[in-house]
Amino acid sequence: MKGYREIITNITAADSNAAEKSRLYLDSLSKPPGSLGKLEDIVAKLCGIFGDRDVDISKRCVIVAAADNGVVEEGVSSAPQWVTISQTKAILDGTSGVGVLANCMNADLVVADIGINGDIDHPKLIDGKIRRSTGNIKKEPAMSLTEAEQAIDTGVELVYMAVKQGYTMLGVGEMGIGNTTTSSAVLASLLGLEGESVAEVVGRGAGLTDSDYQNKVDVVKTALELHSVNLTDVVGVLSHVGGLDLATMTGVYLGAAYHKIPVVVDGFISIVAALCAVKLSPSVKDYLFLSHHSFEKGYATAAKELALEAPLKLDMRLGEGSGCPIMFSVMDGAVSVLKNMATLSQANIGNEYTDSIKGISF
Amino acid sequence: MKGYREIITNITAADSNAAEKSRLYLDSLSKPPGSLGKLEDIVAKLCGIFGDRDVDISKRCVIVAAADNGVVEEGVSSAPQWVTISQTKAILDGTSGVGVLANCMNADLVVADIGINGDIDHPKLIDGKIRRSTGNIKKEPAMSLTEAEQAIDTGVELVYMAVKQGYTMLGVGEMGIGNTTTSSAVLASLLGLEGESVAEVVGRGAGLTDSDYQNKVDVVKTALELHSVNLTDVVGVLSHVGGLDLATMTGVYLGAAYHKIPVVVDGFISIVAALCAVKLSPSVKDYLFLSHHSFEKGYATAAKELALEAPLKLDMRLGEGSGCPIMFSVMDGAVSVLKNMATLSQANIGNEYTDSIKGISF
Repeated sequence: MKGYREIITNITAADSNAAEKSRLYLDSLSKPPGSLGKLEDIVAKLCGIFGDRDVDISKRCVIVAAADNGVVEEGVSSAPQWVTISQTKAILDGTSGVGVLANCMNADLVVADIGINGDIDHPKLIDGKIRRSTGNIKKEPAMSLTEAEQAIDTGVELVYMAVKQGYTMLGVGEMGIGNTTTSSAVLASLLGLEGESVAEVVGRGAGLTDSDYQNKVDVVKTALELHSVNLTDVVGVLSHVGGLDLATMTGVYLGAAYHKIPVVVDGFISIVAALCAVKLSPSVKDYLFLSHHSFEKGYATAAKELALEAPLKLDMRLGEGSGCPIMFSVMDGAVSVLKNMATLSQANIGNEYTDSIKGISF
Repeated sequence: MKGYREIITNITAADSNAAEKSRLYLDSLSKPPGSLGKLEDIVAKLCGIFGDRDVDISKRCVIVAAADNGVVEEGVSSAPQWVTISQTKAILDGTSGVGVLANCMNADLVVADIGINGDIDHPKLIDGKIRRSTGNIKKEPAMSLTEAEQAIDTGVELVYMAVKQGYTMLGVGEMGIGNTTTSSAVLASLLGLEGESVAEVVGRGAGLTDSDYQNKVDVVKTALELHSVNLTDVVGVLSHVGGLDLATMTGVYLGAAYHKIPVVVDGFISIVAALCAVKLSPSVKDYLFLSHHSFEKGYATAAKELALEAPLKLDMRLGEGSGCPIMFSVMDGAVSVLKNMATLSQANIGNEYTDSIKGISF
């Protein structure tokens, strides 16, 4: 199995010719050109990824990376750490948010333990454990550079396994109490934020009191100051102020781009990992599809940095990958347009009209 | 069959107790309260409509009202009028945008001819023709008051037929060249806009040149001035500056609210009809679900007037009801959360934690 360092040099851009050709085809369908908006953008992007109009996204899964974060001892989350275990079990049983949504939208779940602080005995759980929880980023590195690289490689491997099983589209989710804090620290590092400005990418959640929130901001700020000399590259950032889930998710994006399959981003944590992957290999962006615009502060900043826009505005902030299945369904709609719509000539709408409606709405 | 005047006095609000109860139930599920955002709002609204948690939206259809508009002779649309016929046939064949999306999202189509300027021989077409095309609103009323009332009644009857066939959720679409012009005129009337300010709700489409656009604005402005003394109520507005499609769609919303079934709004024309229905009976709003935020100028104004927000930002401007099936799928996701998610206690997450996470994001 190739590690991320090997594949990264072989990640190539999607096929822009195929994307352009699909736009011409879309313009031949019985509708005003461009009138299906972002559905058409989705089609073009998918055709670029698949290299032609032979797009198949029917077999898809959400890859959920579960791991604990040492920073929880700083009181950045009012959910206790053992909730990572309970909730990962619920995800494995398919009864959590992402589970029921995936089932509804004909998607599977692939759940991997990258660093849960405890053991789960479940037939569906993939053992990718690198260590039990990370270190407390306020006081020490989250993990060693080697561990961060192992976690990224685990993400690459999860994609390899998924591809072998026939999956042609992925979503990326996570479970790990405390991971909005590490995600904020990673995002702030990547953007070069420091001091009070880190608050721009630290979320309050719906229930954090003013003092709890200020504590969370202070923890991120202190962590960035402590580790600043080591924040020299993406892997350095992930190892010092990130999390095992974030590193693995970064690997999933890299793997998806390497294998040329579309990959859907969930919420805040998921988009921070996507940004890490794009910083490691800019072509990854060609394979990314945002889903919903997360309620969590910082999402908008990351989306802007990626210059991508989420089509769903659902004010969700659950995580787990719960936004991915809904986006899968929107993408199904886009593909049905590509595959099943009549052309203008099939609809007996002639050239005279075809020429006249360029860019006109019915 | 009861007409709209009879049912309108019997349209009642949704069950706010049932909606509130469902919020309490949602808070007992294994997720931070409120963390599924608008999916939870959708669930609560559906429970209010169905009166309890026994929600079933699996059998659904998009009702498409097709009609022509006399105002096309003013050059407000560069698509010729006969496209209404061609495109209605494509909708009936299931090969148009709304057809393939409905098929993809397990929805049926119900297509009715309310006033196409020609005849279509198709086994699936419902004959609800009131007249061939409306009058040119720049010069004369679109139709008589009686015709407008007949068209509204036709919408009510279409819902009655759908309910008899077991449909428990509807979407509302249309086909009719020139109907963005009539929709702008109706919206401007309802909002009391006049003079140059009507331009706020007149869309340019992607391809109208500056002069074509100014002509469209002028047509709407002139129509409003010509008919102003008769724009005394919603039905007056619909008859003077509206369209047969708009009037029928208004009736569909009224019928859906009367029969207490959820009804999904598509784009600009669809939301203008929804506003008409709400002006006729404010409780209709309890049954409305916006789908996508249309690219067409004026949509945002209508949504603001309704104080509703569309969860999908897809820059679509096709019409036909094409946004409804995608929203059906998002609503399926919301219902799967309601029906299939584990509670916190089932997920072995105890009361201590339950109490601690009120409003906290994982």
